Amino acid sequence: MEQLEQKILREGRVLSESVLKVDSFLNHQIDPQLMQQIGDEFASRFASDGITKVLTLESSGIAPATLAALRLGVPVIFARKKTSLTLANGLYTAEVYSYTKKETNTISVSKDYLSHDDRVLLIDDFLANGQAVLGLNEVINQAGASLAGAGVVIEKGFQDGGKLLREQGIRVESLAIISSLQNKTITFHREEVTV
Amino acid sequence: MEQLEQKILREGRVLSESVLKVDSFLNHQIDPQLMQQIGDEFASRFASDGITKVLTLESSGIAPATLAALRLGVPVIFARKKTSLTLANGLYTAEVYSYTKKETNTISVSKDYLSHDDRVLLIDDFLANGQAVLGLNEVINQAGASLAGAGVVIEKGFQDGGKLLREQGIRVESLAIISSLQNKTITFHREEVTV
Repeated sequence: MEQLEQKILREGRVLSESVLKVDSFLNHQIDPQLMQQIGDEFASRFASDGITKVLTLESSGIAPATLAALRLGVPVIFARKKTSLTLANGLYTAEVYSYTKKETNTISVSKDYLSHDDRVLLIDDFLANGQAVLGLNEVINQAGASLAGAGVVIEKGFQDGGKLLREQGIRVESLAIISSLQNKTITFHREEVTV
Repeated sequence: MEQLEQKILREGRVLSESVLKVDSFLNHQIDPQLMQQIGDEFASRFASDGITKVLTLESSGIAPATLAALRLGVPVIFARKKTSLTLANGLYTAEVYSYTKKETNTISVSKDYLSHDDRVLLIDDFLANGQAVLGLNEVINQAGASLAGAGVVIEKGFQDGGKLLREQGIRVESLAIISSLQNKTITFHREEVTV
């Protein structure tokens, strides 16, 4: 997605060969116009998939997921990273390890909002090791719902998450795929990734 | 805001005389169409206030804040409840005690995204004791920015936060004000609250 790649080139900061900081428009400050374009793009790519729910993980997934859901005309659920006191029992849960934050979170989704009738689009901000998508997919399986695919804003193509998910037959739509962050330079995959 | 009050009456669950659960459209599952109406309403109420940034607190504030910012044509920042490894130094921070979760969070905003030139609209999902707004306002003060006001989706009018903030001269625009949750019944304030 051209606008996104341009934004990454202009504002992304390469902190190391594996860490790209995009806090100016995605992970801390959010560019709502760009999020709308991103949401529209996800909605367009999954327009004929009968999506009934969008599912994401707090916090950085919420903005793009909400705007995708707005365009698709369906609700969005954000999985919690820890259980809130005001959330009653009856949760689907999964363990998700974050390599960035070096911690394991138990993510949870209320059974009230996901059922076997649902066809789910997952949205996340980054795809690196694939752990978040796998955890969210486990929640979908527990609900007996079906996964249409995962929409990812930025995929780190040099890490193994995308390969892992695609080998499991999960459709992954990444709007920008970074092939390398070496030498402080952001390089994008320009080809379509074959599933 | 009529659509919001109707939604609260239809889907809100009164768990106690002080706890209203609106996980079906605001705090876990999100109704993006309603969030758009809410965002438009906040944007309309602050249309002539020269807003340059919308500021909220993860996670439930992100959806309404993003849609308000989209309509206002400005960026939105979500304050973090804990510091991320990929966020560099240079943070404005404040302590916020949550009576609901019975925990104190250090909220933080990067100095990169808030400055003395900014005119800030705060957005939050609930106003109860006012601690989140006060913490966010402290961040604004540290930045030397100015506060235009606080847009709140649901104010618990029977708790003291609204009074506390308004007595400090903070403009509070609440789209639904609940005067009581007694007897498992949701009662709204119908009058304008005089500042």
